[in-house]
Amino acid sequence: VKEISGGVCAPKGFLAGGIRCGIKESSRKRDLALIYSHKLCNAAGVFTTNKVKAASVLVSQENIAKGQLRAIIANSGNANACTGQAGMEAARRMAQLAADAFSVNPSEVAVASTGVIGVPLPIGVIENSIDSLKASLRDDEQGHDAALEAIMTTDIRKKDIAVEITIGGKPVHIGAMVKGSGMIHPNMATMLAFVTTDADILPSALDSSLRRAVKRSFNRLTVDGDTSTNDMVVIMANGEAGNTPINGDSYDYEIFTSALEYVCVNLTRKMARDGEGATKLVTVTVAGTCCEEKAEVLAKSVASSSLVKAACFGADANWGRVLCAMGYAGVELEPEKVNVSFSSAAGEIEVCKNGGSLPFSEERAKAILSQEEIEILINIQEGNSKASVWGCDLTYDYVKINGDYRS
Amino acid sequence: VKEISGGVCAPKGFLAGGIRCGIKESSRKRDLALIYSHKLCNAAGVFTTNKVKAASVLVSQENIAKGQLRAIIANSGNANACTGQAGMEAARRMAQLAADAFSVNPSEVAVASTGVIGVPLPIGVIENSIDSLKASLRDDEQGHDAALEAIMTTDIRKKDIAVEITIGGKPVHIGAMVKGSGMIHPNMATMLAFVTTDADILPSALDSSLRRAVKRSFNRLTVDGDTSTNDMVVIMANGEAGNTPINGDSYDYEIFTSALEYVCVNLTRKMARDGEGATKLVTVTVAGTCCEEKAEVLAKSVASSSLVKAACFGADANWGRVLCAMGYAGVELEPEKVNVSFSSAAGEIEVCKNGGSLPFSEERAKAILSQEEIEILINIQEGNSKASVWGCDLTYDYVKINGDYRS
Repeated sequence: VKEISGGVCAPKGFLAGGIRCGIKESSRKRDLALIYSHKLCNAAGVFTTNKVKAASVLVSQENIAKGQLRAIIANSGNANACTGQAGMEAARRMAQLAADAFSVNPSEVAVASTGVIGVPLPIGVIENSIDSLKASLRDDEQGHDAALEAIMTTDIRKKDIAVEITIGGKPVHIGAMVKGSGMIHPNMATMLAFVTTDADILPSALDSSLRRAVKRSFNRLTVDGDTSTNDMVVIMANGEAGNTPINGDSYDYEIFTSALEYVCVNLTRKMARDGEGATKLVTVTVAGTCCEEKAEVLAKSVASSSLVKAACFGADANWGRVLCAMGYAGVELEPEKVNVSFSSAAGEIEVCKNGGSLPFSEERAKAILSQEEIEILINIQEGNSKASVWGCDLTYDYVKINGDYRS
Repeated sequence: VKEISGGVCAPKGFLAGGIRCGIKESSRKRDLALIYSHKLCNAAGVFTTNKVKAASVLVSQENIAKGQLRAIIANSGNANACTGQAGMEAARRMAQLAADAFSVNPSEVAVASTGVIGVPLPIGVIENSIDSLKASLRDDEQGHDAALEAIMTTDIRKKDIAVEITIGGKPVHIGAMVKGSGMIHPNMATMLAFVTTDADILPSALDSSLRRAVKRSFNRLTVDGDTSTNDMVVIMANGEAGNTPINGDSYDYEIFTSALEYVCVNLTRKMARDGEGATKLVTVTVAGTCCEEKAEVLAKSVASSSLVKAACFGADANWGRVLCAMGYAGVELEPEKVNVSFSSAAGEIEVCKNGGSLPFSEERAKAILSQEEIEILINIQEGNSKASVWGCDLTYDYVKINGDYRS
């Protein structure tokens, strides 16, 4: 897997662009994005499990069910959630507008929104801007950047990646962008991830590949435990790399899926690092379990604990909170078999062995936990499986950002 | 139910006391408490569900299984959790020391600890202080206060109550104290609640009464979502009120249980209000559900959401976060039937009707949400059940307190 530049425009045949249409009234920032493929793409998507789903989610689920897409149109500044029938009509209208611009079928367009919940989407300003949105399309990194900016909300950093792999001797590219500086944003909605690839891959293989990658990346991210109404991950594959079509049970499929997982994990880590108010990326790895699922459940419980997160902020080697969070994870646990270490670029320190305290230098622990990327390593000594979960620390700024987001 | 003074010493025949024995090395505060009944009591307890259980929890569970207690001995400053076999021996020794002081059986003593996890309990200092602990016992409010002070950790306010009810013409008293300014305290352990009553009540009735009251009070408290290694609620009933013994299926049982629920809810609200760093008591009530359980699950999801809690801190009428938290609660929900209001001493304001936004005055909403006690009222219009859950806001001080607790 070789990292390259270009984002979602790195794969052949994709264009991207973004403009300011005026949904974010009080801001000069871009708020409308478009990603487009000349060729009809095989497509797959993963959507929020929240019972309260944005209109954009419902429309995109409907459209992606056919397995093919040509474009994604996305806005920030308004979530188009809890907006009733008018919201559904607005989401459909967004798809129609993008489809008309390219004379394609509206069912070939995915729609995404992120922003305030419960406020009607001003579809008029989108309608007035669709021509300039189309005109903003470019096949290079600038197009990618403009689209990415247009979906960002409280995100501080740009979160994107592109990679090149080789499949059957042909160079194949995957490009991606993500917004979301929390597992969810409040009224702001959430995580939106758009992935493009020029791989030729069958729809069912693409779907299972995306699900596997998402399971091991975005679904292992926790910033504040909330799952938004607007979460979505969409992948489009236009086949322009010219590789032999990938089916679900092949060596090529494994190569492609590993690369897609690499892309998704990279973006997940970037999101955790950019969590609201976060000063640190916290990776929690639980090893020595009977199965990956148990490791994931335990790691999530630790990474989600407000007390653990606050301790990470304070660089406090508080392993008692780690054990405590494992104890209420809802799975069987033998506390007297748990080992805990803290690790970072500054080194590694064992703090708990077989469920009990180890003597350790508080000073050294503080140095290790003061790094920007820290890892909590846990081994429960009952098997050979493991899983990592990504999160961040809990800080004053998280409270500040969320204490009065709407104003 | 009439509120009276005296705390755990309000019921006849109970003594309480507390001293400083030196477990909290760096503090001049009391750290060792004792509650004692002249008569052997029927007793019941509810303990943490965390798989990692403090030694004191294990020993108290063992002792209370016999349904009878004479005393509770409790320390703060050390959780005696993750302390292995030595921890178990120390907890047993604590029971033995209290038992020897009164020449009773050690199985008649419950043991409780709260404080740092993973540090050996300095049983020697308890041993040296047992005589002065016994000497500190009093049958009045001063004894109660000393015991309560000795179990407090980051608690800012004293949380206690006593009530008088009439059963079969006889005055019956219930007194209680609680420590815990979070559903859990970190390394500090947790919630400890000790309840005394002079009611004459059969062990099985006492047990079911306590479970019912706890289910509707302490189990509906959420401060930070963590469940400690040391949580315990213990009730002792010595029968000195002279009422006809209460069995589980009687009018008297209902009166007693209502009063016990009143006591527990009162303490629960006080704990939420005293949540770490909290500036507000937040009550979330979900009504119009098919059953109480569903109402509780939904209300807990809302009260636990970091985003909702931060919005309460900022007095932000952010109903979108309320709907979002209900949507991921894991139960069926029709968003288009959800109504939401905010209420406090300053009035009530409807903000969401049938899942959609209502026009409302932001200024008035801010005034309502700026009170010290606020309520989020939700109706999902599908049935006639309801439940309330108590929590608090998420503040800078929560992060501060937990960012570096051990130092």
